Amino acid sequence: MQIRDASTSLPLYQPLAAFDEALIHQAQLRLDCLTKPKGSLGRLEELAKQIVGITGTCAPVLNQPVIITMASDHGVAEEGVSAYPQAVTVQMVQNFLQGGAAVNVLARHVGCRVIVVDMGVAADIPTHPHLVLRKMSYGTRNMTQTAAMTRAECEAAIHAGYALVEQELTEGIHLVGLGEMGIGNTTAASAIVAAMTNQPLDRVTGRGTGVDAKTWGKKLAVIQRALDVNRPDPSDPIDVLAKVGGFEIAGLVGVMLAGARAHLPIILDGFIVGAAAVIAVRLVPTLRPYLIASHLSQEPGHRAVLEYLKLRPLLELQLRLGEGTGAALAMPLLGAACKILTEMATFDQAGVSGQIR
Amino acid sequence: MQIRDASTSLPLYQPLAAFDEALIHQAQLRLDCLTKPKGSLGRLEELAKQIVGITGTCAPVLNQPVIITMASDHGVAEEGVSAYPQAVTVQMVQNFLQGGAAVNVLARHVGCRVIVVDMGVAADIPTHPHLVLRKMSYGTRNMTQTAAMTRAECEAAIHAGYALVEQELTEGIHLVGLGEMGIGNTTAASAIVAAMTNQPLDRVTGRGTGVDAKTWGKKLAVIQRALDVNRPDPSDPIDVLAKVGGFEIAGLVGVMLAGARAHLPIILDGFIVGAAAVIAVRLVPTLRPYLIASHLSQEPGHRAVLEYLKLRPLLELQLRLGEGTGAALAMPLLGAACKILTEMATFDQAGVSGQIR
Repeated sequence: MQIRDASTSLPLYQPLAAFDEALIHQAQLRLDCLTKPKGSLGRLEELAKQIVGITGTCAPVLNQPVIITMASDHGVAEEGVSAYPQAVTVQMVQNFLQGGAAVNVLARHVGCRVIVVDMGVAADIPTHPHLVLRKMSYGTRNMTQTAAMTRAECEAAIHAGYALVEQELTEGIHLVGLGEMGIGNTTAASAIVAAMTNQPLDRVTGRGTGVDAKTWGKKLAVIQRALDVNRPDPSDPIDVLAKVGGFEIAGLVGVMLAGARAHLPIILDGFIVGAAAVIAVRLVPTLRPYLIASHLSQEPGHRAVLEYLKLRPLLELQLRLGEGTGAALAMPLLGAACKILTEMATFDQAGVSGQIR
Repeated sequence: MQIRDASTSLPLYQPLAAFDEALIHQAQLRLDCLTKPKGSLGRLEELAKQIVGITGTCAPVLNQPVIITMASDHGVAEEGVSAYPQAVTVQMVQNFLQGGAAVNVLARHVGCRVIVVDMGVAADIPTHPHLVLRKMSYGTRNMTQTAAMTRAECEAAIHAGYALVEQELTEGIHLVGLGEMGIGNTTAASAIVAAMTNQPLDRVTGRGTGVDAKTWGKKLAVIQRALDVNRPDPSDPIDVLAKVGGFEIAGLVGVMLAGARAHLPIILDGFIVGAAAVIAVRLVPTLRPYLIASHLSQEPGHRAVLEYLKLRPLLELQLRLGEGTGAALAMPLLGAACKILTEMATFDQAGVSGQIR
């Protein structure tokens, strides 16, 4: 399928550099002369080579990781699709700023900074030195009645995410984890994934924050109505994103595209970040090898997302929280993969005998 | 089945304390008032409760982890069951002491100390300030001809592991990861697991360091011969361990028993550590809840081990290296689980609204 819109010819959407296969071969040679049976570190070795490909060096260093957690509200929340009131979005943003949320605890644990971004929260958040304000609006429109965003709003949100990473690069970043917060955003993510992957709606719609069976039924009906009213065009990912997405999801698309262009490994989180990745990869297919799936979420649509993206998760811990918590938990594995390459002794250095024959 | 031997009435083998269910209930209440949907951190929450049970506190701290990597040689190596010569055991111990092996790199990455123990390496290792010498002999006997160890030797090795942990406790330990090194030790582990679990030999015997199909066939025949010659009695785990085990495997049994008695979480590694755990749990069934399976190894018998132990691995990364590498990689998840309990804000503290209704 052809991407139709002229806007997608912007530099933002240009193909990303393919990996340098000679460099990856060099990394493989290095892995094979380290003091361990060949291939015995399994997926850690695959991860090491992927990071070499992304960063363009055989001695990658990931000392300065960040998680970018984008928050926004969703007009569709007024349909009663969440177990929590909409006010929780702004309250949780304040919790992020105070360092008390799960993503803060896990990011601190792995030595990672969290960048909290207001992409479109439906309330004014009291000024805070660490709050990054990129508010596109006070929440999206109710997608059961009209498009959640105009195409221009959606593109502006993508650009805001892209520009944010470009700006943060001056601070030094080695690695980008993605996270989100937004009451109602599993509803938007399910709508995106249904539209883009053509999977049955009930396969890609879950309990979100934990709704009961009755509310889940309503959630399905709400998403179906949003798809019927808006008729998003799967050959035009920005059309889908604008009509049934959200500001934080659009911002994350921009973050991925900018991060990959800066040769940073991009660590996905759960279902909502995954929906953003589906859009981003459809816009720029060469993005895919820059993505690392941190975990497989309990949210059922996440499996469809990872299958669509052909990504295999590093962890399966039955998480369903979002915020970037899965990305944080996977970060030590990426650091470990790099250090295998750079810190292990070779058979020669250590004076260890090789295989018999 | 009854444990037959009088020696198993020693304090070492006495039942371990059951978890305090009231404390675990308290931890559950705490988890449920933290700012996240109930249960949304999945297995991390289960892990947190297990650590509360093990440590006996609702605010566990795991700041001082260690990995105890025990090395020994195996007489059966002379049958040609490994892809590497026996000299690699002593060479790798020196690599551990110099900090160049995979376990050193991964342990440093997660802020963990490695304790390297010579339980029975078939050569003298040049003195090193960090080498812990508990040498029982210069390797076990060839188990295709006679018992690998006498019962007394085997029990001495278990006691040595037990005493080592008791001694190390004075340095401060919060968490014990297990690791091993020994050319030929997957052969011993397969023999133990076949004897103890009654699984078919070819289901619990793998390629070890990476032998070819022909050597794998020989390895199966060697193990079968060892079982036929020694007739280990599965109702008497020390008999099995003595006849077809190894000094490092016996030492690890002692480490597990002492660690659990000191209320430390015990992180298993791969197949060989798993074989030790099968013996330890058969000796002291109340040990099981103190064990945490770090990962599922590529070595096929590891699945049988974890099924026998009824443990679910935290990671599946296709590792097959041993040394304690899987234990190191899983450690950040344990720390994360504790910090969720101790560092996250509650709904009340953060002023976040609870569920609707």
